[in-house]
Amino acid sequence: MNLFDHLQKPSLIINREIVKKNIDFMAQKAAARGVRFRPHFKTHQSAQVGEWFRRVGVDAITVSSVEMAEYFTAAGWKDILIAFPVNIREIDSINRLAEKIHLGLLVESMESAAYLDAHGQQSVDLWIKIDSGTGRTGLSWDDPTPIIKLAHQIKRSRMTLRGLLTHAGFTYGAVSQDQIIERYQVTVARMNDLRNLLSQQGISPLELSVGDTPGCTLSPDLGNVDEIRPGNFVFHDGQMLRLEVVDPSSVAAVVACPVVARHPEREEMVIYGGAIHISKDTMSLDGKAVFGLVCLPNQNGWGDPIPGAYLARMSQEHGIIHVPAEIMDKIQIGDVVCIIPAHICLTVSAMRKYFDLDGEEFTTLN
Amino acid sequence: MNLFDHLQKPSLIINREIVKKNIDFMAQKAAARGVRFRPHFKTHQSAQVGEWFRRVGVDAITVSSVEMAEYFTAAGWKDILIAFPVNIREIDSINRLAEKIHLGLLVESMESAAYLDAHGQQSVDLWIKIDSGTGRTGLSWDDPTPIIKLAHQIKRSRMTLRGLLTHAGFTYGAVSQDQIIERYQVTVARMNDLRNLLSQQGISPLELSVGDTPGCTLSPDLGNVDEIRPGNFVFHDGQMLRLEVVDPSSVAAVVACPVVARHPEREEMVIYGGAIHISKDTMSLDGKAVFGLVCLPNQNGWGDPIPGAYLARMSQEHGIIHVPAEIMDKIQIGDVVCIIPAHICLTVSAMRKYFDLDGEEFTTLN
Repeated sequence: MNLFDHLQKPSLIINREIVKKNIDFMAQKAAARGVRFRPHFKTHQSAQVGEWFRRVGVDAITVSSVEMAEYFTAAGWKDILIAFPVNIREIDSINRLAEKIHLGLLVESMESAAYLDAHGQQSVDLWIKIDSGTGRTGLSWDDPTPIIKLAHQIKRSRMTLRGLLTHAGFTYGAVSQDQIIERYQVTVARMNDLRNLLSQQGISPLELSVGDTPGCTLSPDLGNVDEIRPGNFVFHDGQMLRLEVVDPSSVAAVVACPVVARHPEREEMVIYGGAIHISKDTMSLDGKAVFGLVCLPNQNGWGDPIPGAYLARMSQEHGIIHVPAEIMDKIQIGDVVCIIPAHICLTVSAMRKYFDLDGEEFTTLN
Repeated sequence: MNLFDHLQKPSLIINREIVKKNIDFMAQKAAARGVRFRPHFKTHQSAQVGEWFRRVGVDAITVSSVEMAEYFTAAGWKDILIAFPVNIREIDSINRLAEKIHLGLLVESMESAAYLDAHGQQSVDLWIKIDSGTGRTGLSWDDPTPIIKLAHQIKRSRMTLRGLLTHAGFTYGAVSQDQIIERYQVTVARMNDLRNLLSQQGISPLELSVGDTPGCTLSPDLGNVDEIRPGNFVFHDGQMLRLEVVDPSSVAAVVACPVVARHPEREEMVIYGGAIHISKDTMSLDGKAVFGLVCLPNQNGWGDPIPGAYLARMSQEHGIIHVPAEIMDKIQIGDVVCIIPAHICLTVSAMRKYFDLDGEEFTTLN
């Protein structure tokens, strides 16, 4: 009997050995290259998994919200960077955190920096958020004037300017391993150019913080940076498989879902496992946008993704998986299938807790 | 001072008066046409909002999962239909529920029906799930043979066949009000044809259960059915606006989000409010797939959607809203904007609790 025999409803399952292997890989890579490893905990969101990072010497972490910082502060972490543009409406919570831990915040505007100067704790480190090509947020790397202006303003204020930070999210849009490596290296080069430019303006020393899972995994050289902040690597997911960042042996998390209906005539099955469990991020598969890949449970956890099978559609509780005709008869109503989500970070947020293959429960901040 | 002045992080806000107006509308429509109103509670998911339905005489409800049925059973509801293909792995929980309440389940396969005959409580009502054109799940309306076969099997078993049920989800793909009404009426006609066919086979009486928010809202005649099960109408959302099912005065819920960054050069702002808060369902707006519409808070709640503004992209915590140039200066860092989500049911699941405009908290099953 294994975990899947007893499974009643959609459950997020991790393989503890693979998680630890993934953590070891990234920790060793950063150590070998003399770069601080400040992992992003927004992927696993669990104090229990956090302990596995402490085991490999991690003492500084990244989170994506004030409440996540509060949760990991309660779990004993003392050096936390909130990698999200500071939300000045949370200033009271931020100031309480800053009394307990070494806190880092992101700024990208004169307004936010001025607000922190007027209302924030002086002990906080500020990082200027740079958009190194992703186009989500941050000050654009190719327009240094506002960056210099903001850096001068912070330098004149009560606050400490720690460095420049970017998330090279555009590696997720790459079409090959080579392109991921190239985009990582371009990002590091752009950040170094900016640091040099600011240094010429008398603004130094400045640290550089970069790091996304595709780039940090594949780039042989992490480059001239002070810290990396990958997060997704702890579990990996369908997007990482699509990008060929890893192979299925590094995917550490699946959502196990009961099959509730079969539609052989259209090569589909319905699983109990929908948008509220898996979330609705997509990945590209043979030119289609799909929500995840499909595996079958086995005695060691789960097998490789079934070629040609994918999570095609979702509503609130329903998932519709496409299953090639020759596999159809192997999966019956009441069986369990394992979904590798397109984007595991959102799945963890949706599921809120998970289990390892022995049934041990992992809670998250939710 | 109102709620928005104190808001610190993304918060789901409902306008209690609009919710009650929406409930009254649907309850009165069903009553006037002599149809049982069995609202789907998967949208609001809250025992407190459930009480507002009791006030208008509702005593039978629909839910989408066993755990939602357990939650509303604990809240005193005695007649609950789980409108999801029965998950036989939850048979123990289902049987415990059946001892407490009048429970309805959906079947669409011989396997599930046989399993329930062998392991289920006899007091449970079974409904055969019909796919009336949506293509999600259920036995297809245009292939009656398997439906007749399943109906005969249930009739021969210990279990009770209560009726035929469909969700005409294809009204959501309609391009006009007329097409929504037509699709609703086509659905009702198809279900009546099936009921007549089964009656000719000696399988009667059978009830018909239909109902989606677009069809039940717009169709002047609810047709020859026994019950309707709309859910979304309690709050409405961006999809309902896009379909012109209602106008903004009927939208009862928004996610209020702090503005954390501005990018006037590309007519965008970054809000604290991402996929883990709003979810990633989309709606069509001027041919684009967007995640929601944008309003501004005011003294009575929030205003109409800003023309040309929309929630364009999302990551885990970030929302990127497009804001027309002429509005840009009216919204500053630290301000609050209100997002009408594309699909409110998923937002409620993601947010887990909400507040009315007076700050009263509403908890959900989560």
